[in-house]
Amino acid sequence: MEVYLDNSATTCVDEEVAKLMYNIMTVDYGNPSSMHNKGFEAEKYLRNARDTFASILKVSEKEIYFTSGGTESDNTAIIGAAMANKRRGNHIITTAIEHPAVHETTDFLSKNGFEITYLPVNEYGCVEPDELKKALKPETILVTIMYVNNEIGSVMPIKEIGEAIKEYNKDIIFHVDAVQAFGKYKIYPYKEKIDLMSISSHKIHGPKGVGVLFVKDKTRINPIVFGGGQQKGMRSGTENVPGIAGMALAAGKLYDRFDEDVRKMYELKEYFVRQIMTLDDVVINGYPDERSAPHVVSVSFEGITKSEVLLHALEEKGIYVSSGSACASNKPAISDTLTAIGVKRELLTSTIRFSFSVYTTVSEIDYTINELQALLPVLRKYRPK
Amino acid sequence: MEVYLDNSATTCVDEEVAKLMYNIMTVDYGNPSSMHNKGFEAEKYLRNARDTFASILKVSEKEIYFTSGGTESDNTAIIGAAMANKRRGNHIITTAIEHPAVHETTDFLSKNGFEITYLPVNEYGCVEPDELKKALKPETILVTIMYVNNEIGSVMPIKEIGEAIKEYNKDIIFHVDAVQAFGKYKIYPYKEKIDLMSISSHKIHGPKGVGVLFVKDKTRINPIVFGGGQQKGMRSGTENVPGIAGMALAAGKLYDRFDEDVRKMYELKEYFVRQIMTLDDVVINGYPDERSAPHVVSVSFEGITKSEVLLHALEEKGIYVSSGSACASNKPAISDTLTAIGVKRELLTSTIRFSFSVYTTVSEIDYTINELQALLPVLRKYRPK
Repeated sequence: MEVYLDNSATTCVDEEVAKLMYNIMTVDYGNPSSMHNKGFEAEKYLRNARDTFASILKVSEKEIYFTSGGTESDNTAIIGAAMANKRRGNHIITTAIEHPAVHETTDFLSKNGFEITYLPVNEYGCVEPDELKKALKPETILVTIMYVNNEIGSVMPIKEIGEAIKEYNKDIIFHVDAVQAFGKYKIYPYKEKIDLMSISSHKIHGPKGVGVLFVKDKTRINPIVFGGGQQKGMRSGTENVPGIAGMALAAGKLYDRFDEDVRKMYELKEYFVRQIMTLDDVVINGYPDERSAPHVVSVSFEGITKSEVLLHALEEKGIYVSSGSACASNKPAISDTLTAIGVKRELLTSTIRFSFSVYTTVSEIDYTINELQALLPVLRKYRPK
Repeated sequence: MEVYLDNSATTCVDEEVAKLMYNIMTVDYGNPSSMHNKGFEAEKYLRNARDTFASILKVSEKEIYFTSGGTESDNTAIIGAAMANKRRGNHIITTAIEHPAVHETTDFLSKNGFEITYLPVNEYGCVEPDELKKALKPETILVTIMYVNNEIGSVMPIKEIGEAIKEYNKDIIFHVDAVQAFGKYKIYPYKEKIDLMSISSHKIHGPKGVGVLFVKDKTRINPIVFGGGQQKGMRSGTENVPGIAGMALAAGKLYDRFDEDVRKMYELKEYFVRQIMTLDDVVINGYPDERSAPHVVSVSFEGITKSEVLLHALEEKGIYVSSGSACASNKPAISDTLTAIGVKRELLTSTIRFSFSVYTTVSEIDYTINELQALLPVLRKYRPK
């Protein structure tokens, strides 16, 4: 049995999406910048994709830009906003638990004249709006906070944060990394006072190598890539038409059955949590219920000193999970998120992330729990004294 | 009849390439950063792709990086090299006929403390090595020159330029935008003294949204995108595995029948040039023969004051071409390249680019020439007095 429980790392591409892309690649392969019919056909896919995201997010299609993925969206938002607004101030606020695409980017800016404030999170991995309010100051130009944490699924109070920012100074730009949230929460940037928002395609059964950056009208932001002036100069380079069309189809399909799918994932999560809590010496990190995202459960296993050992033992059974953090290129490092929520030192390297999709089944979860039940006592025997 | 003669703008994706990508998207969809088998399988595609390009370019697989396309490759090379070497100097040399992905990027740097020298070209669109030698100075840190011009197919004397640079100062970094050259010329960066080289997938029957940046070992260059540290920190972000694998397959297939394909394209070009010269008042820009690239012919039509009119007239007959410049997002502007080679003022807006691929046929060319023969007299009648 193959059980893929690493959907926060990436997801399989929907077959209809892959078919559409095949067709665009081999038939409607024009360059959207070409002035002839073949270019026009390609441009139409881009226009439709922009309309899809605009309608999903309830924004204007002029506010939708396409990038090569979540990382580029985050980089464009953060570097682009910092550079365009540096005359107004040099202070940026973020959190202690951002994805590397955000925290490495703010690190880069901190070496280039910007001052970064890292907000702490509570034991459930959530930023407290009061902490944000304390951090705001006249020099603040940008706040960048994730919607859902990628390791434990905690959800930030984005609307409250957005309102607090704009109440303090409406010129401060609010960027939200929604890579793990999009498709799990119905996000309306205008309602939550979001100016910039990053979305990744390959987390929602779309292809890799493509993403969205929402840029609210009149937001001051510079491009970070220069060239042919595509996408109003915000993101030069021939557009990845099949990828963009594929992503839009995936997003559209997801919104067609949104509530039903989210409900299904919460039921799976609740079932998984209930089952895993029957095992000995198991700790769930963050909220185990509907107060966190529907698709992520982070579990620390006492007595398992190296989560990679458990990961590979599960892999042998066809069960694919992630150890602690993911998206961080193979290097097992101590997780900032787990540290920030105060996970006991001896459990920092004992943590596995299980992440579901709408394709995950109850019998896959049963199989996983059974294998864990068999494996854990054996692995714990070998714990170093 | 549909005749696609806009292969310098983009190409159709090879069907085998599209099939491979379909399979990776739906079956081998893992994240290469995942530590389990599904990640390992994905990583294998990346490794194979790196090996393919390393073997084609006769370089080490450690010198191959994947980007979202030619534009990102150019930006990373130029901004990355400028930023990493700015303590050594602030002078950059380029040419007057670069693609926007290069010249807009050097423009950006010129606004940020760098001095840019634009080398002129001769009437055939080629840089003279002597001009380069005159421009080199102690502050020079980077030279960025295209291999093949995208508008007229002129070929730069890259090896001579590379040698002149390194003779002057081996620490000067030499970047080559090979987007239009790769697959038409066998390029060996070591032999031509190239330190950084950009390749685009969608010009060689691979997918859009993916490219290569060759970075010679020990070349000092900073990343321009930050995040999970993928690709040794040079290019963060989950790799576009299907795109990369597809591009590598396209490149591999191209090298399997390299000489034969190039020969075929030169025969087509020669045939096309011979036929089009039988029409009245036609001027070929650049060399009409094997001294320029096999796939591009730039033709000015005297008496056609707006090339877009001819473009759309051809489009009505199913013939897809490009007016003057391309890759520059729909805005018809006066071409830098045509200006630089001294095209007569009244012909600057009378120019059409015909670009072939290995799929182009003699009968398609015959059809095109026949339609031109019928259209030109009619269109010329309407020329403004």
